[in-house]
Amino acid sequence: MRAHLTRRYWFAASHRLHTPKLSERENRDVYGKCNNPFGHGHNYALEVTVSGDVAPDTGMVCNLLDIDHAVQQQVLDRFDHQNLNYVPEFQEKVPTTENLCVAIYNILKRSLPATHLDKVRLEETSQNSFEVLGE
Amino acid sequence: MRAHLTRRYWFAASHRLHTPKLSERENRDVYGKCNNPFGHGHNYALEVTVSGDVAPDTGMVCNLLDIDHAVQQQVLDRFDHQNLNYVPEFQEKVPTTENLCVAIYNILKRSLPATHLDKVRLEETSQNSFEVLGE
Amino acid sequence: MRAHLTRRYWFAASHRLHTPKLSERENRDVYGKCNNPFGHGHNYALEVTVSGDVAPDTGMVCNLLDIDHAVQQQVLDRFDHQNLNYVPEFQEKVPTTENLCVAIYNILKRSLPATHLDKVRLEETSQNSFEVLGE
Amino acid sequence: MRAHLTRRYWFAASHRLHTPKLSERENRDVYGKCNNPFGHGHNYALEVTVSGDVAPDTGMVCNLLDIDHAVQQQVLDRFDHQNLNYVPEFQEKVPTTENLCVAIYNILKRSLPATHLDKVRLEETSQNSFEVLGE
Amino acid sequence: MRAHLTRRYWFAASHRLHTPKLSERENRDVYGKCNNPFGHGHNYALEVTVSGDVAPDTGMVCNLLDIDHAVQQQVLDRFDHQNLNYVPEFQEKVPTTENLCVAIYNILKRSLPATHLDKVRLEETSQNSFEVLGE
Amino acid sequence: MRAHLTRRYWFAASHRLHTPKLSERENRDVYGKCNNPFGHGHNYALEVTVSGDVAPDTGMVCNLLDIDHAVQQQVLDRFDHQNLNYVPEFQEKVPTTENLCVAIYNILKRSLPATHLDKVRLEETSQNSFEVLGE
Repeated sequence: MRAHLTRRYWFAASHRLHTPKLSERENRDVYGKCNNPFGHGHNYALEVTVSGDVAPDTGMVCNLLDIDHAVQQQVLDRFDHQNLNYVPEFQEKVPTTENLCVAIYNILKRSLPATHLDKVRLEETSQNSFEVLGE
Repeated sequence: MRAHLTRRYWFAASHRLHTPKLSERENRDVYGKCNNPFGHGHNYALEVTVSGDVAPDTGMVCNLLDIDHAVQQQVLDRFDHQNLNYVPEFQEKVPTTENLCVAIYNILKRSLPATHLDKVRLEETSQNSFEVLGE
Repeated sequence: MRAHLTRRYWFAASHRLHTPKLSERENRDVYGKCNNPFGHGHNYALEVTVSGDVAPDTGMVCNLLDIDHAVQQQVLDRFDHQNLNYVPEFQEKVPTTENLCVAIYNILKRSLPATHLDKVRLEETSQNSFEVLGE
Repeated sequence: MRAHLTRRYWFAASHRLHTPKLSERENRDVYGKCNNPFGHGHNYALEVTVSGDVAPDTGMVCNLLDIDHAVQQQVLDRFDHQNLNYVPEFQEKVPTTENLCVAIYNILKRSLPATHLDKVRLEETSQNSFEVLGE
Repeated sequence: MRAHLTRRYWFAASHRLHTPKLSERENRDVYGKCNNPFGHGHNYALEVTVSGDVAPDTGMVCNLLDIDHAVQQQVLDRFDHQNLNYVPEFQEKVPTTENLCVAIYNILKRSLPATHLDKVRLEETSQNSFEVLGE
Repeated sequence: MRAHLTRRYWFAASHRLHTPKLSERENRDVYGKCNNPFGHGHNYALEVTVSGDVAPDTGMVCNLLDIDHAVQQQVLDRFDHQNLNYVPEFQEKVPTTENLCVAIYNILKRSLPATHLDKVRLEETSQNSFEVLGE
């Protein structure tokens, strides 16, 4: 029988939403106070959902340690306690939470090739969350 | 890449579950203490999920302010701090949370014609929640 | 050694904040949208804190069942799924959450004479909570 | 219109993850500290999601009391405050939360034949949750 | 009867913990990854607790709108969506959450001279919170 | 200025409430389903509150790493993923959460002699929590 497993992680980062593709005024209109010049930050909650058949011997869908290892090395070590505007992934992209969610999905897709990645969900605040779904 | 955005709002309202289509006794049997004559109330948490492609320039799925504006004017101003039994939407329908969820889905579908509305979710208590999914 | 035990309960009720001691206009000014004529409602979370020495034989401060019994019979059966404006306690008092918290404190003080009642705390919404402390 | 209803329950249980199909060492490698000889435990939060058309007369998807009754008698009475390793369901299976989620899904599928069971979700800790989806 | 009222607010900000009073190395030792050069950020939850006698006519301890007004104008407008290192309050102080909590306590003490301020509590993450108590 | 810092940790353990000082029947009467012969378990949330003056140079009350180190080595390594009935602290005491809270308070008092320990708080379930206060 197929089961879906969701694991939750936390990290803290800062960002400023601003793109050179728009004028100063358009940036303020589009991003509002998220465009404040010196940036601001959030505690992000990250949920990673994978799925598979429950193995008859171990009763597990996959080894949690493999997921923890990939998330720690490829996601948390890269983004936790960082200013996202200075991180390589966002040199040419705006660090919106949509883009951060897509970036994490792509990173985990590459890091866990044998695992079926159902969903990456990112909570930015208690009012906002974002999801990218796997195929 | 497609992303799904969920935004969370809160409102407080009261209701009494009672329908003229059933007898007094059937009303008590079907609705239990929710049929108490003078009503009772809840804090409702409302989650609205929309989706779309992440725009390459802004890195956003849609402008949150548009959704906030529609929810404030069409949903919160209508239902917050109200007795649902006295609201136009529930003159001919019982204000169950199922019906409230359907009503909010239909209101937002009309108010945000250009947005893909994935889901409206309504938490009535920490034990109960309801969802209506878009096509 | 002394320990403090907190037990959490939930109930749902409605109320309208309005007092005959003030004019219609003053009522609207003081209570804002809580003065809406047909009322509104909340899920209330109730926390009851008691304290005492940890009994050497049972390792307990008190029997939780005694507290559960008093809260069920004296508090939940009285207020859950009710319109507070129609309940005897609020015939001459406005059912603000301050007054509800005081009422519950006084009820439990009488119902649990052998227990040291430290605190009654009432959460009205995720933004508002109220406490009454014992001596 | 179709609506989905989710109801949330809680129970507490203990388990030890260990299978005779693996050696002592493999058990320790696969299950880590969950293989500790005397077991450990969790508070499990269980979410049951069902769906159906909203009935035009009652405004409800189904009677919550039927679901509560099935969950209380078939799930909570069986697993709450128990050591899962000693429960009949886990005499030949490891009581991983994946297997527990599958077991609860199968129990509810049998107990609620007239209800469309969308999903059973089990939170083991604030970091881990599992889901089994209906067809 | 005296009651205590707690109101909860949220804001998002970034900071870097670094003091010119210590060497580069001491800064890294004391602040760890909070010393990362480009900063990081948090969602802060702020709880303000005030107390007083419940007024016999209104049934209220104080007017919530006065507190909301002071917190909005003096705290949220100052710190929300800002980099704390660039805010006047932290030109000569490190923006630790301890110092931020003390700063908010002092600001509210001045802004609400007629109100008894019991406590300012600041949650930095789900693992860390700080409190300053009034006299 | 004095500030209070609370840090939150989680662990999972199992226990059976039973004392040789009472008869089988008295054990069942006092502990109810917590007396079930094979035990059950919980996710415990532990909050440790310490206080002190905010240091003018670092802006900190104390070094969080010292507290984390003491809690990890003296509390989590001892109790996490264990059956409390088999742990040395509970060879002669019933592992009620009251006794566990007192035990953790005493352990931390010894492990952090230079820190003012205000409070140890232990949440056993979302309905139950216990506190021991320092002098």
